[in-house]
Amino acid sequence: MPAHTLAHKLIAAHLVDGHMSPGHEVALSIDQTLTQDATGTLVMQELESLGLRRARTEVSVQYVDHNLLQTDEKNAEDHEFLRTAAQRYGLWYSKPGNGVSHPTHMQRFGVPGKSMVGSDSHTCAAGSLGMLAIGVGGLEVALAIAGEPLRIRMPEIWGVRLTGQLPPWVSAKDVILEMLRRHTVKGGVDRIIEYHGPGLADLSAMDRHVIANMGAELGATTTVFPADEAVRRFLRAEGREHDFTELAADPDAAYDLTDEIDLTGLQPLIAQPSAPDNVVPVSAVAGREVSQTVVGSSANPGLRDFAVVARMLRGRSTNDAVSVDINPTSREILQDLARSGAVADLIRAGARIHQSGCMGCIGMGQAPAVGQNSLRTFPRNFPGRSGTPEDSVWLCSPETAAAAALTGTITDPRELAERLGLTDDTVEEPEHSAVNTAMLLAPPAETEALRTQPVKGPNISALPDLSPPPQHLETTVLLKTGDNVSTDEISPAGAYALPLRSNIPALAEFTFTRLDPDYPQRARQHHQHAVIGGDNYGQGSSREHAAITPRHLGLRLVVAKSFARIHWQNLINFGILPLEFTDPADYDNTDHGDVLRLDGLHRQLAEQHTLTLHNTTRGTDYRVEHRLSPRQVEAVLAGGIIPMLAAATPHRDA
Amino acid sequence: MPAHTLAHKLIAAHLVDGHMSPGHEVALSIDQTLTQDATGTLVMQELESLGLRRARTEVSVQYVDHNLLQTDEKNAEDHEFLRTAAQRYGLWYSKPGNGVSHPTHMQRFGVPGKSMVGSDSHTCAAGSLGMLAIGVGGLEVALAIAGEPLRIRMPEIWGVRLTGQLPPWVSAKDVILEMLRRHTVKGGVDRIIEYHGPGLADLSAMDRHVIANMGAELGATTTVFPADEAVRRFLRAEGREHDFTELAADPDAAYDLTDEIDLTGLQPLIAQPSAPDNVVPVSAVAGREVSQTVVGSSANPGLRDFAVVARMLRGRSTNDAVSVDINPTSREILQDLARSGAVADLIRAGARIHQSGCMGCIGMGQAPAVGQNSLRTFPRNFPGRSGTPEDSVWLCSPETAAAAALTGTITDPRELAERLGLTDDTVEEPEHSAVNTAMLLAPPAETEALRTQPVKGPNISALPDLSPPPQHLETTVLLKTGDNVSTDEISPAGAYALPLRSNIPALAEFTFTRLDPDYPQRARQHHQHAVIGGDNYGQGSSREHAAITPRHLGLRLVVAKSFARIHWQNLINFGILPLEFTDPADYDNTDHGDVLRLDGLHRQLAEQHTLTLHNTTRGTDYRVEHRLSPRQVEAVLAGGIIPMLAAATPHRDA
Repeated sequence: MPAHTLAHKLIAAHLVDGHMSPGHEVALSIDQTLTQDATGTLVMQELESLGLRRARTEVSVQYVDHNLLQTDEKNAEDHEFLRTAAQRYGLWYSKPGNGVSHPTHMQRFGVPGKSMVGSDSHTCAAGSLGMLAIGVGGLEVALAIAGEPLRIRMPEIWGVRLTGQLPPWVSAKDVILEMLRRHTVKGGVDRIIEYHGPGLADLSAMDRHVIANMGAELGATTTVFPADEAVRRFLRAEGREHDFTELAADPDAAYDLTDEIDLTGLQPLIAQPSAPDNVVPVSAVAGREVSQTVVGSSANPGLRDFAVVARMLRGRSTNDAVSVDINPTSREILQDLARSGAVADLIRAGARIHQSGCMGCIGMGQAPAVGQNSLRTFPRNFPGRSGTPEDSVWLCSPETAAAAALTGTITDPRELAERLGLTDDTVEEPEHSAVNTAMLLAPPAETEALRTQPVKGPNISALPDLSPPPQHLETTVLLKTGDNVSTDEISPAGAYALPLRSNIPALAEFTFTRLDPDYPQRARQHHQHAVIGGDNYGQGSSREHAAITPRHLGLRLVVAKSFARIHWQNLINFGILPLEFTDPADYDNTDHGDVLRLDGLHRQLAEQHTLTLHNTTRGTDYRVEHRLSPRQVEAVLAGGIIPMLAAATPHRDA
Repeated sequence: MPAHTLAHKLIAAHLVDGHMSPGHEVALSIDQTLTQDATGTLVMQELESLGLRRARTEVSVQYVDHNLLQTDEKNAEDHEFLRTAAQRYGLWYSKPGNGVSHPTHMQRFGVPGKSMVGSDSHTCAAGSLGMLAIGVGGLEVALAIAGEPLRIRMPEIWGVRLTGQLPPWVSAKDVILEMLRRHTVKGGVDRIIEYHGPGLADLSAMDRHVIANMGAELGATTTVFPADEAVRRFLRAEGREHDFTELAADPDAAYDLTDEIDLTGLQPLIAQPSAPDNVVPVSAVAGREVSQTVVGSSANPGLRDFAVVARMLRGRSTNDAVSVDINPTSREILQDLARSGAVADLIRAGARIHQSGCMGCIGMGQAPAVGQNSLRTFPRNFPGRSGTPEDSVWLCSPETAAAAALTGTITDPRELAERLGLTDDTVEEPEHSAVNTAMLLAPPAETEALRTQPVKGPNISALPDLSPPPQHLETTVLLKTGDNVSTDEISPAGAYALPLRSNIPALAEFTFTRLDPDYPQRARQHHQHAVIGGDNYGQGSSREHAAITPRHLGLRLVVAKSFARIHWQNLINFGILPLEFTDPADYDNTDHGDVLRLDGLHRQLAEQHTLTLHNTTRGTDYRVEHRLSPRQVEAVLAGGIIPMLAAATPHRDA
């Protein structure tokens, strides 16, 4: 019997259709789902469109962690919709303030060996427990809740062997920043990263969460870690040791690709503005002035990540010119930090303690001044994601953030520790965490659930009209982008747009405005249009709004050099055709205003993977590729998954 | 020798000019000033306009507590401006997150017997320590910082005798709600409220803060309490017993007016939507569903106000449908609450702990859903101030808020306590508070201060052009309002407008839009215009923006039945003439579009207090009154205080 990787074992255990060789579509049964509020309002509406009676997963949880500012009535009304819709469809509901979805899910619901999809790109963080957890668009979560399998292209399995031990003041964040330094934001595309090796002994389950979470920044399908003693210890502290199962790759498992990191040799790293892979040693940029540090987010969510900061700040004062912001990632962690005295240490030193949630990580407040350096333990620093145009956001470990909080400049925490006589960066973690479910509402029994009517405030719009594309698709190019355009640039988050996530017509006015403020207006002047993209088009967040809002404005076709996984699927889900240039020179020869024609759409898509796209403005033909499965072709031709399913299943079970 | 009230003693001790009989202008020397960020950015610009070299007060403190959300770069840039401007002019600077100005000032700087002005209407809260503390417009704070005396009309002194003892689950908030129930939002106009009597023994210094703070809601000039053992105890806990001086009225002091409250007879009260004086017993409205409770703000700022909530919530779970928001009012209090275990109790029960600051009290987040009941321990519930149009905000004690947090309905806390078997509402307060100054920057030495250049981001506009009015003033009425229009309706706060407080042209677009969305646009179509107001015009917040932004849009004249004190002065400060109808019927006979003419402005204002206003549209004359002192007349005729001073003192000391 051949030796298997853990990723293969997890996939095999959930395989309901397809063949497990890279590039082939596989269908996987899904045990759990996770939705957050910024994507969840659409998921709830999709459940309604699907006519769902009750969730068919083992566990589905609706979190509220993004839209917490409540600058007007919209957020509160969305929360009420989500609470009542979760009750209606048999989901758990995590109240605003309970915490960021990923660490909270890990604490309360994560189970080794289970599969999960989540409408958030950092869903992969649950790989820290030996789960197969994949970030997808909201519609695919809705389908999973309805009992449908997830269909993905089988990824390659990338074994990353960890050896050695992290030196003092170097931590898990530096491991994933090293991965980004080596492999860039495209390094993980169509791959599952599987960490193994003796270095794991040095990493707690929450440390692994840090690394698995930011696998999203590598573009990976997901990340998996074995379920070993560290996972057992974590689950025991959460009062759930009974959920533990030991899981690991076979000793001599063969990986499709391999890499190795000697933890002993790592140093504090930092991602410079404005890309997660723009990584250099902290020492190389030391001395620059800092006006803000923020600790928190799903990229550094653990008690340890806050406690080590408290340790460094204890008995000292933060720098006069720095705003030192602390975003507890869950109330459980905040409660444990309060119990240990760390909260008091942080307050005494001059930190601002914010409510538990994503906060500045999704641009909900905490925006820095233009051009002033903000050091954050977050996963992303895409341009403007902080809420500030021309921001200067750096990504780093809690240790590096704390060092800057004290000195007012970018500072290598090892150097500061030596200066301050700090010798030990280990943190005592509680044997038993402060577990309770006061902000977690269990799904009601089915009879009660079916009596619940979701409360739809005026901020809950209907889904857009999803008509099928014409046989002969003629579109005008309204936008041409560079490489690595993120979904933040397609449909921004932040304090102004995010409260409109449940309101497609209103949100559509923000589409692409970071790249081109006039895009929505021009789109309305055309019946349908196209966008030209570079490499890794649509990286970052899983928000399906980045497909739905341009679709609402008439987008029918995106031709790019290559696509990021989740956005590519979201385009298909909402009936937008994603095509790839076979000759990159054709990208150079296309521009705004060009009219692109695709004749015989049905025939071309069904018969071959290479199509002919006619540029009628220039009188030239391009060879372009689609990588759609027959089911995906069907979805695009129907106008999207929802009209496809509506046509196929006129009889609903509600 | 006649017996004196404490208010008389405090005024006499600071009198530099004028006669202490009600209605006469008195000039008072000012020892301390307080500015917060939403008004302070203008104050700093006014200091620059005045050419100030260095603050001449004993203590001046610039707080940052309003604009904390940082939804884009504006807040952070304003903070940087305030920090550097405070350094430049020799002020203390309280960093964002350090706490709400009023309780923080009381903790760190309040001294019995001192005088203070603050550019916040709740400055009067410091009366809890036996200070003479008056909320005024920003320009008057700037003048005080520059060493100028404050000029006000001598108020009447209103002695309110307290007897008895508060019953369990009834607290200081119920005392001030009882005052509002009896006397309405106009009850304190042109009065200083002086509490005395044996009932004081039952009220801590922070309890008195609650009562003094909401004296603003009664329209009072200020509130004073004696400096007695309760004040000594407070200062001792803050490590400042050396700042204590015993102060009280003479035993047989005669008050201009009197009232008496028997604390023993009080019950839990609540102000219904949407006015602070719309007060009824909680029991009269019990049972209504609640979707949010918020504890915090300068109206219930003390450790006790949070600890009693923690006590009620301890070991219980908050209601599923209620968002239970906790806004610590200062980091000192948060730290003490963390130390005592109260923070852990609150978190465990399902509360959302927010950063220290004003937050929802000034519409910075925490907006409820339309029409859903929100119970808040705040001082104000003016329509829309929460950030939600058609909001339903109630004002109550922490005990009443906590009861609703547990039950999900408006609930008399006495009734709930009985049901839960809670017998004791007393709270252990620490003997020594968690005092430290990690977020409080002392003013630098003068040489260093003068080297500091305030950093002005693009959100810091210049002050508007302030030209003098013409001799024959002809204005069109663009707006006619009802009674009790608040400055929130003239220049709204909230998450959208508040970040623009330093940017007059941008903020002007919000002027009066809650009453009339087209006002700014219509104003731009007229060279100059008038507004007609009802009774108590301009109540509420001290924001001078409610004068400056309409002035920027061309407002020259407000004719009302009566004015609230601070706004009346702000109008004068910025060259807008406030006149009062002598015959209320004339109010009824004036309407939008009428053209009002005032001939011979100089002569009429200088020679008499009753003027003739000609309505050219209707061909009628009104008799109107002004109550301006000669100096105020001079200010209006110069276009405002700033041009008046510029003309008088061409030589600056900078």
